[in-house]
Amino acid sequence: MDPSVAPLPAPPVRSLAWVGDAASGRLRLLDQSLLPAEEVWLERGALAEVLGDILRLAVRGAPAIGVAAAYGTVLAAREAARAHPDDPAAAEGALRTGAEALSRCRPTAVNLAGAVARTLEAAGPRPRPEALLEAAQALEEEEVLASGAIARAGAAWLLGRRRVLTHCNAGALAAPGLGTALAPLYLLHALGEPLEVWVDETRPLLQGLRLTAWELARAGIPHAVLADGAAAELMRRGQVDAVIVGADRVCRNGDVVNKVGTYGLAIAARRHGIPFLVAAPLSTLDPLALSAEEVEVEERPGDGVRYLLPGTAPAGCAAFAPAFDRTPADLVTALVTDRGVVERPGPGTLAALAGSAASLHRTRRAGR
Amino acid sequence: MDPSVAPLPAPPVRSLAWVGDAASGRLRLLDQSLLPAEEVWLERGALAEVLGDILRLAVRGAPAIGVAAAYGTVLAAREAARAHPDDPAAAEGALRTGAEALSRCRPTAVNLAGAVARTLEAAGPRPRPEALLEAAQALEEEEVLASGAIARAGAAWLLGRRRVLTHCNAGALAAPGLGTALAPLYLLHALGEPLEVWVDETRPLLQGLRLTAWELARAGIPHAVLADGAAAELMRRGQVDAVIVGADRVCRNGDVVNKVGTYGLAIAARRHGIPFLVAAPLSTLDPLALSAEEVEVEERPGDGVRYLLPGTAPAGCAAFAPAFDRTPADLVTALVTDRGVVERPGPGTLAALAGSAASLHRTRRAGR
Repeated sequence: MDPSVAPLPAPPVRSLAWVGDAASGRLRLLDQSLLPAEEVWLERGALAEVLGDILRLAVRGAPAIGVAAAYGTVLAAREAARAHPDDPAAAEGALRTGAEALSRCRPTAVNLAGAVARTLEAAGPRPRPEALLEAAQALEEEEVLASGAIARAGAAWLLGRRRVLTHCNAGALAAPGLGTALAPLYLLHALGEPLEVWVDETRPLLQGLRLTAWELARAGIPHAVLADGAAAELMRRGQVDAVIVGADRVCRNGDVVNKVGTYGLAIAARRHGIPFLVAAPLSTLDPLALSAEEVEVEERPGDGVRYLLPGTAPAGCAAFAPAFDRTPADLVTALVTDRGVVERPGPGTLAALAGSAASLHRTRRAGR
Repeated sequence: MDPSVAPLPAPPVRSLAWVGDAASGRLRLLDQSLLPAEEVWLERGALAEVLGDILRLAVRGAPAIGVAAAYGTVLAAREAARAHPDDPAAAEGALRTGAEALSRCRPTAVNLAGAVARTLEAAGPRPRPEALLEAAQALEEEEVLASGAIARAGAAWLLGRRRVLTHCNAGALAAPGLGTALAPLYLLHALGEPLEVWVDETRPLLQGLRLTAWELARAGIPHAVLADGAAAELMRRGQVDAVIVGADRVCRNGDVVNKVGTYGLAIAARRHGIPFLVAAPLSTLDPLALSAEEVEVEERPGDGVRYLLPGTAPAGCAAFAPAFDRTPADLVTALVTDRGVVERPGPGTLAALAGSAASLHRTRRAGR
C-alpha cells in the first residue's frame, strides 16, 4: 500500500492529555524522567507543577512541551482568576506572567513560546480558562494531525530502506500522536515493511536508550541500541540505510537545532553518502531565526557533573554539557514536514513553508 | 624551551610494576576498573589472575597490556616449572600454552601478542623465569623510553595549540611512563605552556571520564569532560585546536584501530580543518596488517546490555557494542611515534617504520 495514503496505526503511548473540564480538570502526563524503570503518571492541577515538569524533563520533546505549556495556560488562568476574583485586569496580568514563565522555561525549542502565544491568541482578549482549554485542545489535535502527515510523507520517502538509525527520542513520547522522526517508522511497520532501527543511546541523558528503545519495544519494532560514538563505525560497515532525527528548531535557512550528537551524526552520514532526514512539524520551523547561529542553545546547569553517572566522575570534574547542537542545512538531505518533504532544505526551498510558519507564529512576532 | 629536547616530568601514576625477584615476585597493578571511586592495588602471583585482569580491563591500554602480559610470562614459567619439576620439555610446553593464552586473551591490540613473543624470544630457548623477568623489564623500560620520545615529538608538534581534545585514555594508565596521546600534554604542561584539555567521556566504558580526567587532575592540567556526541559542536564553536588519540593498532597503510568513537571524531575534525593526531609507539604498528579491514575488532560480550547503565535499558534490549572502530589513514593528519612524527601516514610515508616494526615483531612473523 502506498504509505502516503495509508491508514495510521495507534501510537504506542499517549504521554499527555487533559482530563476533565477547565474549572477543575488536570493535565495528566507520563513522567519520562523515570522511564523505563517505572511508569509513573502525574496529575497536575497547578501551573508551578507543569513548569517544574518541563524544567526537569518529565515532559520533553519540542511538540510535547509546546502542548504541555498550552494546557499550562489553562492552569495559569484558573489560578489568576482565583487570586484576583474582583479585579479582571490584575487577573489578566497574572495570567500573562504565568504564560511568560511557560514560554521561557526552556529556550531552545521554538514550539514552547509558539504554542503559548497561539493558545492565548486563539482564546481571545481577557482569555478565560474555558477558551484556553479549547485552544490548547485544538493545538494538540493539530500536532496529532501533523504527526500523521509526517508519518505518511516520511514513510513514502524511506520505503525500501530497512535499517534506519535515530538519535534521542522523537517519537510518541516527544510529540502528540506518532511523534516526528519515529512516526514514519511506526507507519512502515504497520504496513508490514521490514525494519531494523538503530538507536543512539544519546548521552548525557540517554533518551535513546531509555525512551526510544522503550517505545519501539511497545510497538514491536526490532531495534538495537549503541553508544553514540559507535554510529560512524556502523555506517562504515554498511549497516545504515538512512538516518532520521527530530528537531527542536528548524531555521529559515534550513539549519537544524537538535539534541547534542545530531551534528556529528550528520557529518558521518555525509561521509558515507547516507541520507540524513530531519522530521519536524511546521510548529518547529522558526521564521524569525535566519540561521542556527541565532538560536540560544541550552547548557545543562552547573558544571554538568550531575548529568554524568554517579560515582564515575572524579570529584570536582568540570564538564561541557550543551543540551543541543547545530546542524547546518548543507548536511540535511530532506526535511520531512506535515506539509510535505523539502529536499535539500535552504532559504529558497523553505521560503513557502517559512511563510506558513510566519502566519502560525504571527502572535509571537507581533509580541517582539 | 624546545620541547623536543626538554627534560621529562614524572608520570602522574605508575600503574604497574614487578615487585621482587623472579622466584617469588609479583605483578603489582592498579585496578583501573574501579577508578576513580577507589584506588585498589592488586598483587598478582598467578598467571590466571593476570589473564583475568586483562580480560576484565583491570589493566588496559595497548602498551600496558603488552607489558602486563610480558610479566605474565614470568608467572607462566614459574608455574610450569613447579608443575613439571622433573620434565623440562613438559614445563616448556606448559609455558608456551600459558603464553599463548596471554597472547590471545584480547584480539585487537597488536602489543599483546607482540610483547609476549618478544619476551619469550629475548629470554632464549627453554626460558627460565629469571630470563623472562629480565626481558619483561627491558620491554617495560623500552616502552617508558618510547613514551618519552612521543612526549617530545608530540609536544613540539602541538606547541601553541592550547585547546586539545582527546578520546578514551591513552595516558600513564594505558602505557608505561607518560602514556601515548597524553604524553605530549604532560610535557607541555611541565614546560609551563597553557593547556585546556577536552576529554570525551568515551562510552560505553567511560575511560575518558573515569581515567583520563583522573590522570589530568593528578597532574594539575585544566580539563573538562563532555559527552562523545558533543565533540562536533565544540569544534563548530572553534574551541578545539587539535585532537590527539592513542591507538590499539596502526596498520601498514596508516589506518588506525582505536577505541570506538575515534572514527566519528576524526570525520568531524576533518570537516573543521582541525589536526587529528594519533600517538603510538612502534610496538603498536603492525607490519602484518595491510589495512584496518584485516584487524579483528573485539565486540563486547553478550548483547552488550551489561555495558549499559543499570536500570536505564528496557529489559531484553539488544545492543551493538564494538570495543573499537577503524579510522582510515586519510583522516589522520600525523602519526606521532617514538621514532618521530609521520605526516600524512600512508604506505609510502610509513614504509621505513613498518620495516623497523617488522624487525621488532620478527618472532611473531616467524611464528605464523
